[in-house]
Amino acid sequence: MRIRVINPNTTESMTALIEASARAAAGPGTVVEAVTPIMGPASIESHYDEALAVPGILRAIIDDSGADGYVLACFGDPGLDAARELASGPVAGIAEAAMHAAAMVGRGFSVVTTLSRTRGRAHDLAARYVAPGVCRGVHACDIPVLELEHDPAARKEVIALARHALERDGSDAIVLGCAGMAGFAAAASAELGVPVIDGVAAATVMVQSLVTLGLRTSTREEYAPPPAKSYTGLLREFTRS
Amino acid sequence: MRIRVINPNTTESMTALIEASARAAAGPGTVVEAVTPIMGPASIESHYDEALAVPGILRAIIDDSGADGYVLACFGDPGLDAARELASGPVAGIAEAAMHAAAMVGRGFSVVTTLSRTRGRAHDLAARYVAPGVCRGVHACDIPVLELEHDPAARKEVIALARHALERDGSDAIVLGCAGMAGFAAAASAELGVPVIDGVAAATVMVQSLVTLGLRTSTREEYAPPPAKSYTGLLREFTRS
Amino acid sequence: MRIRVINPNTTESMTALIEASARAAAGPGTVVEAVTPIMGPASIESHYDEALAVPGILRAIIDDSGADGYVLACFGDPGLDAARELASGPVAGIAEAAMHAAAMVGRGFSVVTTLSRTRGRAHDLAARYVAPGVCRGVHACDIPVLELEHDPAARKEVIALARHALERDGSDAIVLGCAGMAGFAAAASAELGVPVIDGVAAATVMVQSLVTLGLRTSTREEYAPPPAKSYTGLLREFTRS
Amino acid sequence: MRIRVINPNTTESMTALIEASARAAAGPGTVVEAVTPIMGPASIESHYDEALAVPGILRAIIDDSGADGYVLACFGDPGLDAARELASGPVAGIAEAAMHAAAMVGRGFSVVTTLSRTRGRAHDLAARYVAPGVCRGVHACDIPVLELEHDPAARKEVIALARHALERDGSDAIVLGCAGMAGFAAAASAELGVPVIDGVAAATVMVQSLVTLGLRTSTREEYAPPPAKSYTGLLREFTRS
Amino acid sequence: MRIRVINPNTTESMTALIEASARAAAGPGTVVEAVTPIMGPASIESHYDEALAVPGILRAIIDDSGADGYVLACFGDPGLDAARELASGPVAGIAEAAMHAAAMVGRGFSVVTTLSRTRGRAHDLAARYVAPGVCRGVHACDIPVLELEHDPAARKEVIALARHALERDGSDAIVLGCAGMAGFAAAASAELGVPVIDGVAAATVMVQSLVTLGLRTSTREEYAPPPAKSYTGLLREFTRS
Amino acid sequence: MRIRVINPNTTESMTALIEASARAAAGPGTVVEAVTPIMGPASIESHYDEALAVPGILRAIIDDSGADGYVLACFGDPGLDAARELASGPVAGIAEAAMHAAAMVGRGFSVVTTLSRTRGRAHDLAARYVAPGVCRGVHACDIPVLELEHDPAARKEVIALARHALERDGSDAIVLGCAGMAGFAAAASAELGVPVIDGVAAATVMVQSLVTLGLRTSTREEYAPPPAKSYTGLLREFTRS
Repeated sequence: MRIRVINPNTTESMTALIEASARAAAGPGTVVEAVTPIMGPASIESHYDEALAVPGILRAIIDDSGADGYVLACFGDPGLDAARELASGPVAGIAEAAMHAAAMVGRGFSVVTTLSRTRGRAHDLAARYVAPGVCRGVHACDIPVLELEHDPAARKEVIALARHALERDGSDAIVLGCAGMAGFAAAASAELGVPVIDGVAAATVMVQSLVTLGLRTSTREEYAPPPAKSYTGLLREFTRS
Repeated sequence: MRIRVINPNTTESMTALIEASARAAAGPGTVVEAVTPIMGPASIESHYDEALAVPGILRAIIDDSGADGYVLACFGDPGLDAARELASGPVAGIAEAAMHAAAMVGRGFSVVTTLSRTRGRAHDLAARYVAPGVCRGVHACDIPVLELEHDPAARKEVIALARHALERDGSDAIVLGCAGMAGFAAAASAELGVPVIDGVAAATVMVQSLVTLGLRTSTREEYAPPPAKSYTGLLREFTRS
Repeated sequence: MRIRVINPNTTESMTALIEASARAAAGPGTVVEAVTPIMGPASIESHYDEALAVPGILRAIIDDSGADGYVLACFGDPGLDAARELASGPVAGIAEAAMHAAAMVGRGFSVVTTLSRTRGRAHDLAARYVAPGVCRGVHACDIPVLELEHDPAARKEVIALARHALERDGSDAIVLGCAGMAGFAAAASAELGVPVIDGVAAATVMVQSLVTLGLRTSTREEYAPPPAKSYTGLLREFTRS
Repeated sequence: MRIRVINPNTTESMTALIEASARAAAGPGTVVEAVTPIMGPASIESHYDEALAVPGILRAIIDDSGADGYVLACFGDPGLDAARELASGPVAGIAEAAMHAAAMVGRGFSVVTTLSRTRGRAHDLAARYVAPGVCRGVHACDIPVLELEHDPAARKEVIALARHALERDGSDAIVLGCAGMAGFAAAASAELGVPVIDGVAAATVMVQSLVTLGLRTSTREEYAPPPAKSYTGLLREFTRS
Repeated sequence: MRIRVINPNTTESMTALIEASARAAAGPGTVVEAVTPIMGPASIESHYDEALAVPGILRAIIDDSGADGYVLACFGDPGLDAARELASGPVAGIAEAAMHAAAMVGRGFSVVTTLSRTRGRAHDLAARYVAPGVCRGVHACDIPVLELEHDPAARKEVIALARHALERDGSDAIVLGCAGMAGFAAAASAELGVPVIDGVAAATVMVQSLVTLGLRTSTREEYAPPPAKSYTGLLREFTRS
Repeated sequence: MRIRVINPNTTESMTALIEASARAAAGPGTVVEAVTPIMGPASIESHYDEALAVPGILRAIIDDSGADGYVLACFGDPGLDAARELASGPVAGIAEAAMHAAAMVGRGFSVVTTLSRTRGRAHDLAARYVAPGVCRGVHACDIPVLELEHDPAARKEVIALARHALERDGSDAIVLGCAGMAGFAAAASAELGVPVIDGVAAATVMVQSLVTLGLRTSTREEYAPPPAKSYTGLLREFTRS
């Protein structure tokens, strides 16, 4: 099977990081292709960035609609609903997959993310994906997304924050709240002694599982293919006829 | 004061309809300017359309960031969070304003909307804006958005559906779930004998009220102006330096 | 239009304060009349006081049922449901209006109120008016209601408490939890850098908005005029024939 | 022990009915005294009536504050919070007691009440007393409160409505939603084959149980005795010095 | 009436303690019989123990199905649903009864329990029995169950923890979260000045109340007697024919 | 990797059916071993059966604690918490896995199960696993568990019920609520045109995914291995030293 992993931002080095994490998790028969959108923001650190990442994500699905499944590799799960309308195979966001996985290996998890301003979005997603009380807190390290891979101290700070979160929230698992933290999961789990979930890996195996089960997004009502529509201006190429 | 009312779709006749409704509701000292985005979908009838309406909405705010307040005139409230990060004055979505108003004139309302596939979005918004149990049902007439103003039978069908909703949901007020229904409120209220809320009018007076109170979106954390960011491809004009 | 603002307690100086706040917020064509009930408690600081404030509030509506809208200016929103059954125009409580307004200018607010013993009521009202998670905390300064306007240190203490609440709750807006704090909003907002909502002003513009929209409380079932009823004893004047 | 059962309306025949039900449920060592307030409405069929029943209820507690426990025998549980501030012994509303009892003998109950306009209040009380999903529906027979005991068909209609409710709600117990239905419980249970709970009897044994356990309302913060307060006008006798 | 109080663990001294507490609470006409199961764990300190306590509990009901009511005297309320299917009279768990009682004497309670690992179960039970927000916290003293009665310092530690919980949670009542704390209620209440609820006593009077009201578990659908079933191996004696 | 799939009932033919379903879903490198407990009920159709299935399930884990992961193949997810304390690898219940999978391929699912009396349990599990509103209904075909595989009409009836559920609940996916329906998923999905999830297959791939990710149940607090404990009577072999 072929899974298309879309990095919602346009930074190639981050696409490479995401691809490595997805490939490490995928099964032997699974081909993982990570892709950088042809338009959009260099990183996603606001609602503005998240909203403007969506056209590039949708473009990446339209341009290759024959994959067996899709992963959206930004923790805000941007464009997930629209992606489900377009894609023929199942689609998972990394927050979605990480939270479902965390719910199966513990009683309550904490999210450790980058910027404080994105905590609201993480809470909204938790309210949508898991039962009340399962996400017990969202904590920010206030390291910008693109510095995560270059700042040698970042991993240490993220792990220290996770340790604080476990204590403060009474949680028993950690969800890494940024695709840029994909490389931290193993070390963090070893140090903290609790499950630490990287959403990129989680979404890859979850989508792989859904494909194996023969499942794809329901086309009954809400997620049916979008109706024909004329688009104008900069976005006219998104016209559906 | 000056309120900018943004029609999230690119159909001029709908912008005119929205402007008329907003102007009829605004106070004497309020200047209402309705605007059609320079890019985007002809109407919004899917998550795909809604996501791709957002760049045009944000462009319309960036191009005139000096208004005292903003209304987003599509019932899916597309791009509301991102708009709040950009705008200097308060911003209201029409679903948001209509639901808050309905909550103050009744115990529980029903939403009457266009296409069945959009009901999920209306439920999500209700969960975000009002207390559990206040939105008691969402019902679709399955008339496409752009036919509402041309189809002479549409008003009658919408009112019949509202009557059914009141009975079925045990509700005592009706929220019109599409900007294209703006002209139906008075007739519907007269026929049904309950409050019927048009979101365009409601959002206009709500934003006017917030401006009067000297309130604007909080810039503490989540809605602070988005950080500088480089954009590429089709969307490079959205770069923030 | 004419809005009747009812001070639920019987302290005239507080009625004057409330009237000033309501008038400052009202539009040019709006006449604001504040009224002190002819019976009831000097201030409201318990469930006992709140319950016994209601007859005076209802009397004030019965005695002038021709206003276009009504504001109940105590943060416990006493008698709101009964007032809605009686009044021909829309009715807003100041907690209700403040919470709806706060929900439109931020992600989550904290309430700053007077006595600790009233915090439960504020939580109950938040659960009724806004979505779960929007009210993030209720904090008491433990200054009695009638000392707020005379104690020169009160404003400073309230602002200090609000600052603490923003930090502790992770909120981004403040709701002032007592009509007696009406004069503090502007200074508090300037000092704290976040929206600070005075319910008296908020309720005045909200009711004004509802009247402008042609909306009044639904008379379908629950808020229909109360049936005829015989009253005895001290309350016999409340008989409805 | 001595339990004071307060009929919140002023109809003596209803006080007698309530007393009979309470006495039948009370244990051998328990003295039940039912009392009719010296002021207030003949029956409670609106928020207006409910609010104006409270002064009489509070008067009945002030006039005899030495009872071991108190029951408020109207299904709207009027004045419960204020009563708890005043009474030295525990206080139970009949909706409260009935719902707690129903939750212990089934998975989910339906409420069968009098007027449709009071259903909202029953839903509010259920949300306050029991876990979500435990109260599965509230159904009205639309027989006025004072006709329940005189209308020979009332019992039959109430039982028929209860049967419908069990089927429609998927419930397995019935709560009688009016003190005037106190006499129907045994017959209804026999006919329907499910537990049928009369709140008057339930509240009597619940208060008796709390007294036996040595429990009374907590005086920590919210339910501490109300502070001294001056009252004016018709209500000046409620002054607390 | 005869109430069978089942100690879910097999430690006789704890059965004696439970019996004393239940007898002290029961009315004059009530016979309380405490019983130790003939199989199962010496104490219940994990999900494993709780699950394996259930066969002994069910055996104790099957062996004496003629009691008027049943109490399950472990704070995890093990086997409650299954017990309700078997017993002819009402059944209460001690967490269930304590939480309902606490909800009637305060606004919000804290639970004080033994081991940290059991706090999740207490939260689950609170979510099932009482409205959201009524249980405000669960705190563990980390004293093993069987040391509670022998450790002279235990009472003091439990009371100190309760004092901390009241402050931290803003609660106004305490629920003792272990049958082994049954003897602490009076002293704790005297020291803390708030209601302190022992579940064994609470369940005894609650079941007594339900029996008095003529109520037993509904047999409509879920709690009907279990269907005939063949059991094999160690558990073959549980076969129902 | 090796996954142990435990059939909680003692019917060998059902174990064979479960094994076939699990094997069909498992990846090439995964060894699936289905096991029948050495004690317990022939099928699970009540809380009584479910509670008494748990000792056999736990025995099956203790007897082979070296598997990489575990599946509990009864839709009531019996003993899940206790199993997590014992097992070294991750454990999934089939209701849990099916509900998480369904949440990723649709907006809201309906459960189609066997007996009406088990619907309460399905609702409880949905409340624990997924966000409110995601499980939209639970419907029973009232065919006993062991007749599912022998009754040629069963598949047809289940599919008809599912069709009814989609319409009534406004759902867009179906969860099969019994391990005995494992063979129906493909045909049901083909006929209904929506995703149909068999929990046995879902749990197998979910556990496989968790193992691949290196995740196992957290041992922080609640799911740490149970403490040493003495067991007596029939269950003495469960003693942990």
